[in-house]
Amino acid sequence: MHRTKVRVVEDVLDANDTIAAANRADFARAGVRVVNLMSAPGAGKTALLERVLGELRDDGVRVGVLEGDVQGSLDADRLASLHVPVVQLDTDPGFGGECHLDANMVRSALPQLPLGELDLLVVENVGNLVCPAEFRVGEHARAMVCSVAEGEDKPLKYPLMFRTCELVLVNKLDLLPHLDFDLDKLLGNLDAVHPGVERMLVSARTGAGLGPWRGWLARVAARAEVAA
Amino acid sequence: MHRTKVRVVEDVLDANDTIAAANRADFARAGVRVVNLMSAPGAGKTALLERVLGELRDDGVRVGVLEGDVQGSLDADRLASLHVPVVQLDTDPGFGGECHLDANMVRSALPQLPLGELDLLVVENVGNLVCPAEFRVGEHARAMVCSVAEGEDKPLKYPLMFRTCELVLVNKLDLLPHLDFDLDKLLGNLDAVHPGVERMLVSARTGAGLGPWRGWLARVAARAEVAA
Repeated sequence: MHRTKVRVVEDVLDANDTIAAANRADFARAGVRVVNLMSAPGAGKTALLERVLGELRDDGVRVGVLEGDVQGSLDADRLASLHVPVVQLDTDPGFGGECHLDANMVRSALPQLPLGELDLLVVENVGNLVCPAEFRVGEHARAMVCSVAEGEDKPLKYPLMFRTCELVLVNKLDLLPHLDFDLDKLLGNLDAVHPGVERMLVSARTGAGLGPWRGWLARVAARAEVAA
Repeated sequence: MHRTKVRVVEDVLDANDTIAAANRADFARAGVRVVNLMSAPGAGKTALLERVLGELRDDGVRVGVLEGDVQGSLDADRLASLHVPVVQLDTDPGFGGECHLDANMVRSALPQLPLGELDLLVVENVGNLVCPAEFRVGEHARAMVCSVAEGEDKPLKYPLMFRTCELVLVNKLDLLPHLDFDLDKLLGNLDAVHPGVERMLVSARTGAGLGPWRGWLARVAARAEVAA
């Protein structure tokens, strides 16, 4: 029974990887680099994009967003007001919704995106620390947001998510004085599951630390031109 | 393709409901009432249990916990220090882990629990606002925790979770002065997806509002004696 389940999961992930490779080939043809942005619900993914996408565009990086949600278009509406191309992808099939984006869902949305006119596509995943980590969508880099309000133990409890990211944004730093939170402990737990992973201490609310975050996105985008 | 997927999901949920009914029959035989406690990662489920389980036990309610996690036993260790029966259930099958508990996982853990010696079993689900809402585990009541640090939009983005709960705990109320958060807006969004659902404003950190939470758990437990 368990072996059957393992095999089904392996098959699903194999099929996903095949479609992710097709997405990646399309991204390469269009010369666009893709970031998969993940976090728990309410950690601040959308706020961190709102804070930098306008400036990034002003710096000449042509950026678009694929917005994954179980239901609604609240986040897409927030980002569309920045005048960047945003496509909403709802995962709700009538059972409460898929808890992650997979390569096929992303593929279904690609025709709605002006890929050839973009340098960078940010895929904002569904708020969840488990399944999004298991499904590649064709991205070149993964970033995740971890809010200090969530406690120091999250890397130990959701290790795959923290382990498969190239960047960890520690957000809501402005709340530190008001929490029983040990930042060194969080960073120690992070190094325990992903030694040395790039990390940035930020606050979407106050704007602290957002320069390096914008710079990281610009660097990911720039590699597309190098590769093209 | 989509119809096949819908049918597979329906089959999975049907099978889950069958096992959930078996769990519920076992709970009825043992005279134990079960609460399914859910939230996003880091919203405060474990902290809210730590704060009331000791007093609940001193009040004569025999309480146990089934602790669901992707990996590790951090939360179980915290609760075991309160000297209540705690059983850890890790969902990690080697692919990053299941993002929810289902009826079969809970059933596999039941032999490790002294059901006949309990009035109340709290099942602490995996931190996730999507899939846990789709899988009944045999519970009599559902409670969820929503942290004010997560923003006001969560009921609209994860409606099934908020809709299927009998109680919504709005936690981390002590952070309100430090957030751009409109409590009335959250409660309005809550009423939009689940009109009139019982809600409690609490802070596990300061202890505010925990009396009603303890009372709610005691009431759920008491109905077992009424039913027995």
